[in-house]
Amino acid sequence: MHSASDSDRMTQTTQATQNQTTTTQTDETLDVPAGLKGVVVATTRLGDVRGSEGFYHYHQYSAVELAERRTFEDVWFLQLEGRLPTSDERAAFAADVAAARRLPDVVLAALPAVAACAGAGPLDALRTALSLLGAALRLRPVYDLSPAQRRADAVRLAAAVPTVVAAVHRLQRGLTPIEPRDDLGHAAAYLAMLDQQPTPARARVVEQYLILTLEHGFNASTFTGRVVASTGADVAACLVAAIGALSGPLHGGAPSRALDTIDEIGTPDRIDAWVRERVLSGGRIMGFGHPVYRTEDPRSHMLRGIAERLADGDPEARALVTFAEQVEARVLELLHELKPGRRLHTNVEYYAGVVMHLAGLPRELFTPTFAVSRAVGWSAHVLEQAADSTIIRPSARYVGPAAPQPLP
Amino acid sequence: MHSASDSDRMTQTTQATQNQTTTTQTDETLDVPAGLKGVVVATTRLGDVRGSEGFYHYHQYSAVELAERRTFEDVWFLQLEGRLPTSDERAAFAADVAAARRLPDVVLAALPAVAACAGAGPLDALRTALSLLGAALRLRPVYDLSPAQRRADAVRLAAAVPTVVAAVHRLQRGLTPIEPRDDLGHAAAYLAMLDQQPTPARARVVEQYLILTLEHGFNASTFTGRVVASTGADVAACLVAAIGALSGPLHGGAPSRALDTIDEIGTPDRIDAWVRERVLSGGRIMGFGHPVYRTEDPRSHMLRGIAERLADGDPEARALVTFAEQVEARVLELLHELKPGRRLHTNVEYYAGVVMHLAGLPRELFTPTFAVSRAVGWSAHVLEQAADSTIIRPSARYVGPAAPQPLP
Repeated sequence: MHSASDSDRMTQTTQATQNQTTTTQTDETLDVPAGLKGVVVATTRLGDVRGSEGFYHYHQYSAVELAERRTFEDVWFLQLEGRLPTSDERAAFAADVAAARRLPDVVLAALPAVAACAGAGPLDALRTALSLLGAALRLRPVYDLSPAQRRADAVRLAAAVPTVVAAVHRLQRGLTPIEPRDDLGHAAAYLAMLDQQPTPARARVVEQYLILTLEHGFNASTFTGRVVASTGADVAACLVAAIGALSGPLHGGAPSRALDTIDEIGTPDRIDAWVRERVLSGGRIMGFGHPVYRTEDPRSHMLRGIAERLADGDPEARALVTFAEQVEARVLELLHELKPGRRLHTNVEYYAGVVMHLAGLPRELFTPTFAVSRAVGWSAHVLEQAADSTIIRPSARYVGPAAPQPLP
Repeated sequence: MHSASDSDRMTQTTQATQNQTTTTQTDETLDVPAGLKGVVVATTRLGDVRGSEGFYHYHQYSAVELAERRTFEDVWFLQLEGRLPTSDERAAFAADVAAARRLPDVVLAALPAVAACAGAGPLDALRTALSLLGAALRLRPVYDLSPAQRRADAVRLAAAVPTVVAAVHRLQRGLTPIEPRDDLGHAAAYLAMLDQQPTPARARVVEQYLILTLEHGFNASTFTGRVVASTGADVAACLVAAIGALSGPLHGGAPSRALDTIDEIGTPDRIDAWVRERVLSGGRIMGFGHPVYRTEDPRSHMLRGIAERLADGDPEARALVTFAEQVEARVLELLHELKPGRRLHTNVEYYAGVVMHLAGLPRELFTPTFAVSRAVGWSAHVLEQAADSTIIRPSARYVGPAAPQPLP
């Protein structure tokens, strides 16, 4: 994982003394860029994001091609096994996932109380319910489990996310949760639990969105899940932590914000004034810019195509998609003018919001739906990290007053 | 946070091409030691652990001196403000903490359902309940809050940990939770909620343990909390994630394991055989060794002294402490013989278990009690991280087969 020249790069700090005023590290330390930007914290076989090419892949396959031609379960299997399933494996895996969508009775009994504690954010109830599920399943630390047991736990937890999301959503609206169906794929089963009457076309759109967003490098939530996994904690502890990171406004992954922006602008004549005012006041425009891509986000590109297909023959959808494309084109021009050299491009959030809206998902479910797919990616990362027994325990530099001072 | 020579240390990787077989990073990356060992991920004013000196401090004061002479609330205030409180501030802060120990009714109503989902680990219910509390309090992302609002959230969450721990513990035993008392300090209030009839001497022992373990550098749980905070997520998301990391067997912080070891050895004549068998079979001996200290853990040293005082005039306690000291001395000799050069010393877990047992806490509460104090440290780290707007988003190296391969 680290090169032979690590020790050369070490900054040998001096032995600390009690009278020292600044740093007091006693072991070898290494300074790195803020936010660990560019710092290689692990090796991975799960995939990669090639930012300058606008390309990303899951194991050896293009993620976009997988979304075009495969099912969510196929890609899930790929992330766990490193290869696509045979037809027998496909059936067996789909059955495992379907079984794992069912929640234990003790969790179903507890969910109304969880739903009653409505948080300010869309992921709060999911965070609580998944933690509850992990406890109810009596998950054991990955450190104490065989690879097969870890894998089983990872599938059980990740597969339950749509059930939990749909159940909490309905309970918070005074509705009874709908039992998961075993005869549907993961995306269609999710829509059915939301009582969304999934047509095959609509289920496929949501499935493609889920495949596109299943996994995407070492973002903060994935890294959080891996840090927790590095302690040997159970899979629920890892996924619950990752959900917490995903809920942060700086993480991204909140497609409703981009759609809110489109709504807020409202009409084509208002685009310029709105964008200029936002940019000049130092605000961010949701749906644009990405920490890794130096090109258009390939997820955005595919989702725009899906939005176009959904608009076909539906005047209301057509109007929204056309306006979204107008806003996108003008925002890119204005960002180029107002922030020259920043290379800001459309990211996944922008058309994800449009597509989920056209697929009939209510806005408050956009981020939880993102978690439905990303939970699969996180769990694959947890399994990969758990196979390494090195705890992630960095260092820090103390920059306060000299210690110890006499205690008053 | 990073030195001017960062860019010099960068490893410039080549532009990726589709035919490349190994690494496919497209931006500058930096290789670092496994597990981020020694990697300076942040600056901090909260304190430092000087491993080679066997010394640690909170802000400018020795942590051990604080434990000897101050209250838990004083040290909590110090971690938030960087200085000890005046007497007026002390009273106001104690009142804030006491008020925050009360749980909202909606959480009290939900706790029986949480307690019914008994996890396999001691922290599972706390993880769920704290997540629930954060949702019920409708905590907002720290990114959207003023420093004063963030601080208020941090105090509310951390102060509620003993209430949640005690309530779940009682509910799981068919008992009604006991209301928190406002007229007691944090440690005594915790014991009272466990119906432990805290004598001032016993409350003080627990308080000293809580002060000693409040904070201890960039261990995996603290780092997890900071990664989540770096996304701008709410305080509950951060603390819930940190609890997940603490639950990992590689993290440490499970004082019951060391006490289990003492029990398992049982009698002085069995020490040698037990230790040799464990070490030669590649197992770890709980309560010995630390990733940072190269000396005796100063927390262990103080806790041994506390155990000695608790044993005074109590024959049963005297017997346990004497045996623990015998085991400790012989384990250190044998580790020196069997693992020469490893510099393994007694760590905080060893006497923490003994002290908590003598203070009347049941073994299943040892780790949750550790979380009672560490939640305060985590929350101080969350506030410090939230003041920096840099998201922690590292990189990884893809080491799988060349991509993209044609999709079958």
